Amino acid sequence: MNIESLMLEMARAAKAASIWMARCPSAQKNEVLLNIADQIEAEAEGIQAENRRDLNNARDMGLSDAMLDRLTVKDPTIQSMAQGLREVAALDDPVGAVTKTWIRPNGLEVSRMRIPLGVIGIIYESRPNVTIDAAALCFKSGNAVILRGGSEALHSNQALAGVITRVLKAANMPEKAIQVVPVRNREAVNILLAQEEYIDLIIPRGGEGLIRFVVQNSRIPVLKHYKGVCHVFVDESADLDMAEEISVNAKVQRPGVCNAMETLLVHRTVAGEFLPRMARRFTAAGVTLRGCPETCRILPGISPATEADWYEEYLDLILAVRVVDDMDAAVAHMTQYGSSHTEAIVTSDYRRARRFVREMDASVVLVNASTRFNDGGQLGLGAEIGISTSKLHAFGPMGIDELTTTKFVVFGDGQIRS
Amino acid sequence: MNIESLMLEMARAAKAASIWMARCPSAQKNEVLLNIADQIEAEAEGIQAENRRDLNNARDMGLSDAMLDRLTVKDPTIQSMAQGLREVAALDDPVGAVTKTWIRPNGLEVSRMRIPLGVIGIIYESRPNVTIDAAALCFKSGNAVILRGGSEALHSNQALAGVITRVLKAANMPEKAIQVVPVRNREAVNILLAQEEYIDLIIPRGGEGLIRFVVQNSRIPVLKHYKGVCHVFVDESADLDMAEEISVNAKVQRPGVCNAMETLLVHRTVAGEFLPRMARRFTAAGVTLRGCPETCRILPGISPATEADWYEEYLDLILAVRVVDDMDAAVAHMTQYGSSHTEAIVTSDYRRARRFVREMDASVVLVNASTRFNDGGQLGLGAEIGISTSKLHAFGPMGIDELTTTKFVVFGDGQIRS
Repeated sequence: MNIESLMLEMARAAKAASIWMARCPSAQKNEVLLNIADQIEAEAEGIQAENRRDLNNARDMGLSDAMLDRLTVKDPTIQSMAQGLREVAALDDPVGAVTKTWIRPNGLEVSRMRIPLGVIGIIYESRPNVTIDAAALCFKSGNAVILRGGSEALHSNQALAGVITRVLKAANMPEKAIQVVPVRNREAVNILLAQEEYIDLIIPRGGEGLIRFVVQNSRIPVLKHYKGVCHVFVDESADLDMAEEISVNAKVQRPGVCNAMETLLVHRTVAGEFLPRMARRFTAAGVTLRGCPETCRILPGISPATEADWYEEYLDLILAVRVVDDMDAAVAHMTQYGSSHTEAIVTSDYRRARRFVREMDASVVLVNASTRFNDGGQLGLGAEIGISTSKLHAFGPMGIDELTTTKFVVFGDGQIRS
Repeated sequence: MNIESLMLEMARAAKAASIWMARCPSAQKNEVLLNIADQIEAEAEGIQAENRRDLNNARDMGLSDAMLDRLTVKDPTIQSMAQGLREVAALDDPVGAVTKTWIRPNGLEVSRMRIPLGVIGIIYESRPNVTIDAAALCFKSGNAVILRGGSEALHSNQALAGVITRVLKAANMPEKAIQVVPVRNREAVNILLAQEEYIDLIIPRGGEGLIRFVVQNSRIPVLKHYKGVCHVFVDESADLDMAEEISVNAKVQRPGVCNAMETLLVHRTVAGEFLPRMARRFTAAGVTLRGCPETCRILPGISPATEADWYEEYLDLILAVRVVDDMDAAVAHMTQYGSSHTEAIVTSDYRRARRFVREMDASVVLVNASTRFNDGGQLGLGAEIGISTSKLHAFGPMGIDELTTTKFVVFGDGQIRS
C-alpha cells in the first residue's frame, strides 16, 4: 500500500472509531487505560528491546547525547508512562458533563453538554512517552487519535502501539481509536495535515521548527505555541526576598522549558538594591546575565544586551535584565517582546496587582508566583496535552476539557417558534 | 494608496486599537453603543439616501427582487439596527468575568478570566444591518473589528461607518476599533484573509459560496457553517399532535433559513397514521413533498425522493420524507446526511430522549421542540454573531461569550516550583 492510501485509510478509520468513542462509557475507557498501564509494565522488556534498536540507529546517525537521552526508555520511563495512564484513568470524564443549564421564558430547558472533538492528530518529536501521555488524554476525552512521533523513535512507538492495540482488541473496543503512524516517511505528515474531512484538530509538540512546519502545511486547525519569552517584573513595592526566590526559581529550576523566565524587568527605584543581590544568586547558579545600560552600570562587567536579546527564548542559563521606569514601561516591554505565554509581577501594591492581571495579554498571568507554574498539572488541570498561545478554542495550558467542545441540548414540551 | 497598503494599514490599526479596546470599561463601551443607536436614528435620512444610491446601482445591474429587498434600508431597518445596539448595550460585559476559581494545595489561587479575542474580521453579503449588528457584538466584547460587506451595499455601509466613526471620535475612543472596508475591489478580501499577524478570527456570513471562498483562502481561523440539513424524527411514542405542530413550524415558519427542517423522518409504526395528517397540513401550507418508497406508498401521488434529496438544503417549501424502521435508523440517517447543525426528536419515551441527546452529533439537539430554536436569541445568548458547525472554539449559535477566550490568572504569596 502506498503512503497516501495508508494515511487516508488511517484517517477514515479514526473518524469511524470516533463515533464509537463518543458514546463509550467512562468505566470502559478507564479499564482500557488501566490495562494498558499494566501491560506496559508487563511488556517492559520487549518495549525496551525495541527502544534499543532505535538507540542503535540514532547513535549510528550521530544524534546528540541530549537527543539520545530523550529517546531512551529507561525503567523510570516505563513507570512514569504507567503512572500517567493511571492518573488519567482517575480524572473525571468530561464527556456528557453539563456545564450550564438555564430555562427560557417559554419553558425550554437549554444546556451545554461536553462532547469530544472527534479525531485529533498529534505530531511530536523524539520522546516515546508522549505516545502514551497524548493517547491517554485523547482516549479519556472520547476522541480518536492518530499519533505521529519522531522517525528516530519508530520502533519504540510501534512497540507501544502494539501494546495498545492488543488491549483494545481484548476489550472489544475499536482498535483504530488509537493509531500510531507506522512509517518513517516524512510525506506521511503532509498527507495527514490535508485530511480536514476526517481530522478535527492537530496538536504539534516539539521545537519551533516542527511547529512552524505544521502550521504552514495544515488545512486542519492547529493548537500550538511557538515559544515562551516569559518575564518577571519586580515592582518597587515588591518584597525583595520573595522577588529573589521567584526570579531564581523562574530562571534556574528548569531553564530548558517554555515557562522559564527569559527576561527580568526591575523597577528603577529598587534596581540598585535588588540587582546586586540577584547577580550573586544567579552567578552562583551559573547564569550568564545580559543587561540594559542601567543594569550594566549597576553590575559592572556583565555583557550588554542587544535588541535581539529581548526577543530571545534562551532555554538556557542566560538571562536578559532590564531596568524600567515604572509599571507602564514593564507592561509595554512585555507586550512588545513577549510571546503571550507567561508573565509575572512581584508586588505588594494592591492596585498594581489588579492592573497587571487585567492588562497583561498572556495565557497565564501571575502575581507573586513563579512563571514555572504555567503547566496543566501545576494549575490543577490534571494533565496537559500542550500549551496554546493563540486565543481560539484554548489559551494557556490545555487539559482534558480542552479536548472537548460543547453542544446545546434543548428539552421542550412541544414548543414552536412564533 | 493601493489596495494592499490600505488593507494592511486597516489590519495594523485594528490590532493597535484592540489593545485599547481590551482595557475599555463597560460603561464607556455601552455609552458608545447607545450613542450610535441615537445617531443612526437622527441620521436616518442621510443613510437612506446613500442606500438609494446602492439600490439604483443594484437595479441597473439587474439584481433579483429578493436581493434588492435584502439591500433596502427601510424605516423598520433603521429601528431594528438602533434596537439591536441598545440590546447589546444592555447585555452583561463578558470581559473580565471570572468563569471559575480554585485553590491549589500550595495555596495558589487560580482563575479563568474572560478576555477579548483581539481583532475580528466579518465578511458578509448584502444586508447593511449586519454592519451594525456585528460591529455592536464585537465592540461590546472588547474586540476591534474589520467589516467587509457586499460590494452592492458599499454606500449604505460607508454611511453607517461614518456614523460610527463620528461617535467614536466624539467619545475620544480609537476610531479604528470599528472599520468598514471602503472599497469594492474583491482583492481586498484576499488581502484581509492573509493578515494572520493582525487578525485573530474571521467570521463569514452569507451563502455557501462565500463561506467556501473564505475557508479556502484564509490563513486566519474561520468560524462558520456551510449549511443546515436539519431533521425532525417522529418516534413511535410521539404525541402526534405535538409532532404535527413541531414539523409544520420547523418547515413552514421561515423556510429560507438554516435552522428550518429539510427532511422529516417518521417511525414505521406511526407512519400510516401520521403521514396522511402531515400531508394535509403541508399541502395546505404549499409544501411539496418528496418521499422514500414507503412514504410514496402511504401518500400516493407525491414525487419520489432521490439519494441527492437526503443531502439537500432546500431553503424552500420542499420537504423530503423518509419512513425509518427504528431510532437507530433515524440516527444513522442524520449522521450520514446531516450537517451537524440541528436535529430534533419528538418522543414520549424517556430512554429514547436520553439516548438521542447523548448520541446525536449536532450543534443543537432538541427533544420535543422545533429546529427553529437554533438561534442565539431564542436560546438566550442575547444576540448572535453566527452559527458554527465545526467544533473548535464554538459549536452552535455564537453569542458574545464566543467572541472571547479565557486567560489564567494566578495569585500567590511567593510560591515557587520545587
